[in-house]
Amino acid sequence: MLKVKTIDIDFGAVEVVLNHNDALEFGLNPHDRIRVKGKCGSVVAIVNTSESLIGEGEIGIFTEIAKKICVRNGHKIDYERVGKPESLGAIKKKLDGGKLSQEEIASIVGDIVSKRITLVEMSAFVAGLQAVGMDLDEAEHLTKEMVAAGKTINFEAETFDKHSLGGVPGDKTTLIVVPIVAAAGLLIPKTSSRSITSPAGTADRMEVFAPVEHDINAIKKIVNKTNACIVWGGAVDLSPADDALIKVEHPLSLDPRPLLLASIMSKKKSVGSNFVVIDMPTGEGAKIKDKKEARDLARDLIEIGRRLDMTVECAVTYGAQPIGDSMGPALEAREALNTLEGNGTPSVIEKATAIAGIILEAGGVAGKGKGAEKALEILENGEALKKFREIIKAQGGNPNVTVEDIEKIIGKKKKVIISGRSGYVTKINNKAIGQVAKTAGAPHDKGAGVLLHAKGGTRVKKGGALYTIYAEQGFKLKEAEALALKTKPVLVEGMLLEDIPPTFLGRH
Amino acid sequence: MLKVKTIDIDFGAVEVVLNHNDALEFGLNPHDRIRVKGKCGSVVAIVNTSESLIGEGEIGIFTEIAKKICVRNGHKIDYERVGKPESLGAIKKKLDGGKLSQEEIASIVGDIVSKRITLVEMSAFVAGLQAVGMDLDEAEHLTKEMVAAGKTINFEAETFDKHSLGGVPGDKTTLIVVPIVAAAGLLIPKTSSRSITSPAGTADRMEVFAPVEHDINAIKKIVNKTNACIVWGGAVDLSPADDALIKVEHPLSLDPRPLLLASIMSKKKSVGSNFVVIDMPTGEGAKIKDKKEARDLARDLIEIGRRLDMTVECAVTYGAQPIGDSMGPALEAREALNTLEGNGTPSVIEKATAIAGIILEAGGVAGKGKGAEKALEILENGEALKKFREIIKAQGGNPNVTVEDIEKIIGKKKKVIISGRSGYVTKINNKAIGQVAKTAGAPHDKGAGVLLHAKGGTRVKKGGALYTIYAEQGFKLKEAEALALKTKPVLVEGMLLEDIPPTFLGRH
Repeated sequence: MLKVKTIDIDFGAVEVVLNHNDALEFGLNPHDRIRVKGKCGSVVAIVNTSESLIGEGEIGIFTEIAKKICVRNGHKIDYERVGKPESLGAIKKKLDGGKLSQEEIASIVGDIVSKRITLVEMSAFVAGLQAVGMDLDEAEHLTKEMVAAGKTINFEAETFDKHSLGGVPGDKTTLIVVPIVAAAGLLIPKTSSRSITSPAGTADRMEVFAPVEHDINAIKKIVNKTNACIVWGGAVDLSPADDALIKVEHPLSLDPRPLLLASIMSKKKSVGSNFVVIDMPTGEGAKIKDKKEARDLARDLIEIGRRLDMTVECAVTYGAQPIGDSMGPALEAREALNTLEGNGTPSVIEKATAIAGIILEAGGVAGKGKGAEKALEILENGEALKKFREIIKAQGGNPNVTVEDIEKIIGKKKKVIISGRSGYVTKINNKAIGQVAKTAGAPHDKGAGVLLHAKGGTRVKKGGALYTIYAEQGFKLKEAEALALKTKPVLVEGMLLEDIPPTFLGRH
Repeated sequence: MLKVKTIDIDFGAVEVVLNHNDALEFGLNPHDRIRVKGKCGSVVAIVNTSESLIGEGEIGIFTEIAKKICVRNGHKIDYERVGKPESLGAIKKKLDGGKLSQEEIASIVGDIVSKRITLVEMSAFVAGLQAVGMDLDEAEHLTKEMVAAGKTINFEAETFDKHSLGGVPGDKTTLIVVPIVAAAGLLIPKTSSRSITSPAGTADRMEVFAPVEHDINAIKKIVNKTNACIVWGGAVDLSPADDALIKVEHPLSLDPRPLLLASIMSKKKSVGSNFVVIDMPTGEGAKIKDKKEARDLARDLIEIGRRLDMTVECAVTYGAQPIGDSMGPALEAREALNTLEGNGTPSVIEKATAIAGIILEAGGVAGKGKGAEKALEILENGEALKKFREIIKAQGGNPNVTVEDIEKIIGKKKKVIISGRSGYVTKINNKAIGQVAKTAGAPHDKGAGVLLHAKGGTRVKKGGALYTIYAEQGFKLKEAEALALKTKPVLVEGMLLEDIPPTFLGRH
């Protein structure tokens, strides 16, 4: 029996801490597993050791786990040694180049969801998917097991959806696409992510208008009322295995193909989508480098969709610079509202109506080749705006919100970055400009971000404004400005890009 | 500025804990990296978050790191965000099937040793070595970088060494080989490991006779006095990169070939070995399955040796059952001393003299093919025992230790396991019998372990003793006995192994 001492640190895995001497005495090594039994359940945990924080006879339990098994400081609990989970064998098989059966994939997903395997072990799995990969059978099973491990929603009517592979900052098109599609009478229950590495995710943008954390029952009510929703998927537990794996993929900067496929398709299947359009931003500085890579990935997405009874259509879009002119939650929310009110930026309107158009055609609301036109009509006649305000209201926001309301939360500290020379904007570096917006405070500071005054191809004069950085706090503005001056995310060059003299070949 | 709060948990990586709200406010995600500056240095640490253990404005620092940068509870310290280490790019390159340059391998080893990369990232590296592997150029560079990252010892004279791939319990041959070789006048400074998964490592066995933790200066003195030492390598920091990687390999149950090569060869190079004999226990239940696998690995070991200016010779030995009759530190120490005193078990004598013989021949002390004979002579004429007592004395132990002294520390709790039938011992399961000894308390409880009364091929009667379990504590003896009854590590069968009746084919 050991005396509980709770430790409040958020780890991604289930761990306990024993006194160093106790661990030696019990013959337990760091990373061994024990099952600890609480008042309302038991959990398999990984052993760590401490010299003094945890005394002899004590067991340190992280708060999240203590809650789960109903133990508190001072409780006495029992433990027993357990072996390694069987999924480790399947992970090793993958590393050794093997093909995993559905049962083996199920054991891995099950152990991930129940946190029986550690981050170190999950990392080896992700590395195996990167190094060895999976064929489409395995990817199909991985997707299905991820769906089975999470919650699902089902709607009576045919359900439409969109997803973007991401990687391009400023992409607020979902806030335009969803109301257009819903206004046309089609069902589009959109779950979105928050930012991981970008200045804002769709959920961060929508949160400027209304709460985005709703449970499944609330989502059903919202969708029944309005044909649509724009909510944070993380609140619904649609694919807990995927949520867990992201905690490893992100620090490793890995995004292996089979996980990319399973991550997207499992979440779409979990909300009962019948038709999904996948936006693939492509070009320099985007996730997808060229059309060939896009087509190759599209083939897999469409095939996995087919195997899961979903029709998938892929839209390869221009992704070499930000979409629209703003990055950061409030700035992007303003641009989206402006667009719905008829004052949009051309790139946002064109992209949003193109994607909405694909869905309208698939849903039979527009004839073949007429979808984008129909979407533009719904945008321009104000029906999309009306629908957006209905969605805001159903999610608990203020349906009468104005551009001026949003402007009140845009950061008061700002700095205009000017051009050091006359010329043309030849490039906007997606990653660098996004990092400036993040350093200014986005997405946590909703008013922080970047507003572009000149996009690719625009002529600027020496001293002319390139972009403005907005921040809520002065020190973040200073840091963002320093970063901007260092990384120069917006490149201005003359028409003559390089002068190659005759001496270049070494002759005189 | 954040206020320090130290946290005493031993993690394998450098981590700090911020309040959840502060992390959001600073735009830091879990697993992001910050550099924290202490009074006597700075360190790059991985961010974790806490809701309550760490308050706003506080930073939790694990004790080991706090000591390293000289900060204490209540100190105010600064931090700055830092990017991902460059070695992550090299790890990804390996996962994508690339060949790593010496510079890339150096950056990985450097980041491992300075703990700039996390266990999760090290896991991806180990997984990459398992899935993709390394060619001999890469393995050579990995070995050299591991040597460069650690301490080294050099002796004036030609230096001999031995290493066992392990995996077979009860292998106390090093305690016999080293004194034989040293008594013959050759230099053999042996660094050994403690047990990771076995009932005892060589360092655990030697510790029954004398202290095994000595620094480099002490080792030089011991070797200058006696031609030899038997010390724990972990105390000398010979290959800190290898020590760190084991923390990942062990929980993953992975031992990729390039790491196996680099781990062995870097430690041998670090102690200045010129000639190394590598014992490769082979057979069912050993690490190496058959002679083909042994030869394949031997080729790589010999080649890496050549590239590092070491002569390597490999000895493929019988590894399908324990060596000698005992497992556990004190029981094995007794068997080793008995062997040196002329009362040895045949398998220990034969293996030890064979391996010592290879070294004696390489050192010119015995003619070709005469090494084992010469080794047996040194063992039987008492010179090896005399040398062993010199080594014990030089390392600070009692040179007059007797078998009776050692018997005093053998566990007082014991249980004889008997055979349920008459027949022959057809198999002793290395892993299962080792696990029984570990469950009884070995190697932490030096007196715990297993003594075999019948080895493979021996005839036993129903009710005859198979082995005795020794323990220092009653509850551990009970657990070990329960495990033994469940896993049955010693198999007794009749001469008729299976009776296949005519009905076997489904005909009557």
